[in-house]
Amino acid sequence: MRGANPTIGGILSTDEYQLTMAQLYYRAGLHERPARFEHFFRSNPDYGEHQAGYCVAAGLHPFVEWLGATRPRPSDVDALRSHRGRGGRRLFDDAFCDWFRDVDPMALRVEAVPEGRVVHPNTPMTVVEGPLAIAQLVETPLLNRLNFPTLIATKASRVVEASQGRPVLEFGLRRAATGDGADAAARAAIVGGAVSTSNAAVGYRLGFTPAGTHAHSMVQLFLALGGGELAAFEAYADCYPDDCLLLVDTVDTLHSGVPNAIRVFEGLRRRGHEPVGVRLDSGDLAYLAVQTARMLDDAAFPDTTIVLSSQLDEITIWQILSQLAVEARRIGMDADHVVRRLVFGVGSRLATSDGDSSLDGVYKLVAVEDEGRWLPAIKVSDTPAKVLNPGVKRLWRIYDERGHSAADVLSTDDEVLVPGTELSLHHHAQNDTSRVVNPRDWSRIEQLPVVVVEDGDVVYPGGLEALADIDAARKRRLADVDALDPGVRRLVNPHVYHVSITTRLLDTKIALVDQILRSRPTQ
Amino acid sequence: MRGANPTIGGILSTDEYQLTMAQLYYRAGLHERPARFEHFFRSNPDYGEHQAGYCVAAGLHPFVEWLGATRPRPSDVDALRSHRGRGGRRLFDDAFCDWFRDVDPMALRVEAVPEGRVVHPNTPMTVVEGPLAIAQLVETPLLNRLNFPTLIATKASRVVEASQGRPVLEFGLRRAATGDGADAAARAAIVGGAVSTSNAAVGYRLGFTPAGTHAHSMVQLFLALGGGELAAFEAYADCYPDDCLLLVDTVDTLHSGVPNAIRVFEGLRRRGHEPVGVRLDSGDLAYLAVQTARMLDDAAFPDTTIVLSSQLDEITIWQILSQLAVEARRIGMDADHVVRRLVFGVGSRLATSDGDSSLDGVYKLVAVEDEGRWLPAIKVSDTPAKVLNPGVKRLWRIYDERGHSAADVLSTDDEVLVPGTELSLHHHAQNDTSRVVNPRDWSRIEQLPVVVVEDGDVVYPGGLEALADIDAARKRRLADVDALDPGVRRLVNPHVYHVSITTRLLDTKIALVDQILRSRPTQ
Repeated sequence: MRGANPTIGGILSTDEYQLTMAQLYYRAGLHERPARFEHFFRSNPDYGEHQAGYCVAAGLHPFVEWLGATRPRPSDVDALRSHRGRGGRRLFDDAFCDWFRDVDPMALRVEAVPEGRVVHPNTPMTVVEGPLAIAQLVETPLLNRLNFPTLIATKASRVVEASQGRPVLEFGLRRAATGDGADAAARAAIVGGAVSTSNAAVGYRLGFTPAGTHAHSMVQLFLALGGGELAAFEAYADCYPDDCLLLVDTVDTLHSGVPNAIRVFEGLRRRGHEPVGVRLDSGDLAYLAVQTARMLDDAAFPDTTIVLSSQLDEITIWQILSQLAVEARRIGMDADHVVRRLVFGVGSRLATSDGDSSLDGVYKLVAVEDEGRWLPAIKVSDTPAKVLNPGVKRLWRIYDERGHSAADVLSTDDEVLVPGTELSLHHHAQNDTSRVVNPRDWSRIEQLPVVVVEDGDVVYPGGLEALADIDAARKRRLADVDALDPGVRRLVNPHVYHVSITTRLLDTKIALVDQILRSRPTQ
Repeated sequence: MRGANPTIGGILSTDEYQLTMAQLYYRAGLHERPARFEHFFRSNPDYGEHQAGYCVAAGLHPFVEWLGATRPRPSDVDALRSHRGRGGRRLFDDAFCDWFRDVDPMALRVEAVPEGRVVHPNTPMTVVEGPLAIAQLVETPLLNRLNFPTLIATKASRVVEASQGRPVLEFGLRRAATGDGADAAARAAIVGGAVSTSNAAVGYRLGFTPAGTHAHSMVQLFLALGGGELAAFEAYADCYPDDCLLLVDTVDTLHSGVPNAIRVFEGLRRRGHEPVGVRLDSGDLAYLAVQTARMLDDAAFPDTTIVLSSQLDEITIWQILSQLAVEARRIGMDADHVVRRLVFGVGSRLATSDGDSSLDGVYKLVAVEDEGRWLPAIKVSDTPAKVLNPGVKRLWRIYDERGHSAADVLSTDDEVLVPGTELSLHHHAQNDTSRVVNPRDWSRIEQLPVVVVEDGDVVYPGGLEALADIDAARKRRLADVDALDPGVRRLVNPHVYHVSITTRLLDTKIALVDQILRSRPTQ
């Protein structure tokens, strides 16, 4: 849908209502009014029988790249001019189209939590401040570029946690969302802890050597031509003597694939090359992995890798590792000896966040400037959890003496939280739930998010290049996950991480809700 | 990730193993050997408590566009040259890189089921024939461009079925996969029966006027500035007098939103404009829709639209319509009078196929040419359902006298099925399950798929333009869904549609499996 397409991939990759609202603001003279929006998600992914206890932020670099590269094109303006309303007249008039033509998304100030950092529900991941109409227009591109990658980085982090330190490869391109969707998933999986991807374009682009050897089709081909599986493996070993990893389940894993692989590996060794390993892509992976390891051991290949793939996710990997311990014990093998040679290839279920396929991230107006001061904005709702925490706020993360993150705290803009003092905190949504944090229970504090774009420039330390640094993002994830309570990291029924608001913010919120509810018309 | 990116979005948007296999074929002199691959999915989406009984093909036009537009760029070749294997040497040698530089995906012959058509598991949606190495390279781009859209068109078709003829709008951009992923979802939703999308770029591009009015933020803004919800609605009505559709749940739907909307609608009518309607985005939508309809009726606006949105899918819509009938009866209203004014805005759950987020489409080698004849290829598996139906085949759809599709039948290439004869059919995967179709039980037959690309050209009747015709695809879906047994269309526990193979194909398969299993090494 790209190619000759004049509207795709640009400023119009937004929801139509952002455009109609922008024109309304323009006509009302409100389009340049400074406004502040917050991007946050309401709940961690819930995959049904298992649930995330935290999320991993991802997508910021691609979003900031998009901000910097996107300006209305003549074809975009033409599309708006062509839009007819129900009365047959143009929906967007010339004055608005002229304004729209000059929209520059870099006029916005953006604060964000850097990629790889652990983030929690109901706390601002991204804060956008700037001319109302422009801030409104970028809502959808921002959400489209941050929600999905954060969802996938989160899933990847769980898969990596389940894998007990063994490498995870992202294999999802064939069934992931088309084009950028799959590319964004591959990148987010790496942010979330995967060591590489099978997606060649993304791997080469990001500097992570793409992973891949051969598929069943190669073995089928040699079978059809009469050469058999052994001929296929020999051809592969000839072609890639130092990178020989063979898929052993096209015919019969234990009775054909592994014996044939061993024969080929012996030939390689005679010629001075060490084989890399085998891949198992079907059947009872725990059982097959143990049996394969034993056969490879017996043939004097105790260090070859065993890649497992086929419908894996965090739960199947956890299950495989549990079963594998039993299977190994049964035949008198050390399970660790099998586990330490495993690599997990994780595809569709990672690249689509199987079980919960969307993050409920929203972008809400929290304040608008009026005569030099910020007026707080709110959305009231019958659902208490959906009532916004209004106004210009700060987000803090507090740590205890062991370096564990104890809570995320939202305060008003004029509050400074001082470590080692008593903190009175309230549940972010339930007004009647509160607690006191003792001075001795928190010793360090940091402020999230950080300024990324300001005055038309990327002001993040190190600039766009630093934002693009995926290794740095991966390190941030490691450190942040390490700082979480083990209960929060649990794959099933995790502890709920504390997200709190200060008393001052609670008071602001209560006053604002009262004021708005009083303003309802009486019937 | 696009922009300055030299590898993204081109020929390298494939799995790395396609490249390593292509080089192996090149070195073995097999790269130009004619080969035949089939793309099919193994099972309909299973959303957990509900399941699809059929799929709707989508993505063909974007895939064919990609085939025609994609050639290796110098940067792609450079990426291959830069790839170092474990031994530190280049993985792809100069000879292969020189061959790769001239790869033309249009050298392939492509047969496909046109978009919008109903498709069933284990039948070829797409058949690719051509030089082995090129056919192998396009596996991943093909799957990435067809699996996901088919998944989404299928979900859309179910949502449309649940909506009892009321319009469905695709609203998923904010939480769908990034970029092309969301765009492909919007397009596929329209193929599957949605009437339009909120995705402005896609709507303008495809000629479906994008849908959208305003969000909560607009009302919040006026509230923050002191004007209140009424002022927001008035501003909207002033700006869009003939397109006035108001979101009424920012403060309180029944006590603020609807009364304020009615006041504004009355003003519009006095000025000679008819309002369009309201949107409800939270709360008990069935109850609120009935109450809103009554209030609008009482205010003499019986024809205004009521758009419902908020976490909708086929099951929630079904549930809303069921509850709505009860709610309407309770207050003495005709439920049809409420239903006929409804429009459904369906977002994340449609654009990500919530409940089953990937289609298990695969691309399998079924035959390779040797000395002028096709040798059948097969993949044996411990799972009977995963054993390929081998060889060059034909796919037929047979219809009964009422025009209902009775079964899809796979035959060998040299069989011609004649309507009104007795057909002996076998289950596509379970060799011991067979049945006989009486001559009187089928009266019409058609062959699927059709040739789309051949000899470097798009040979589909009407060319690329006809492939791009979404209205035609939507009509095909309507006709095909109409031809399904109502039991197959059921949203929960649908009947299983018959997918069968002929006796001759079964015999070929049995012989081939025997031959391969005999070839296993003896230990």
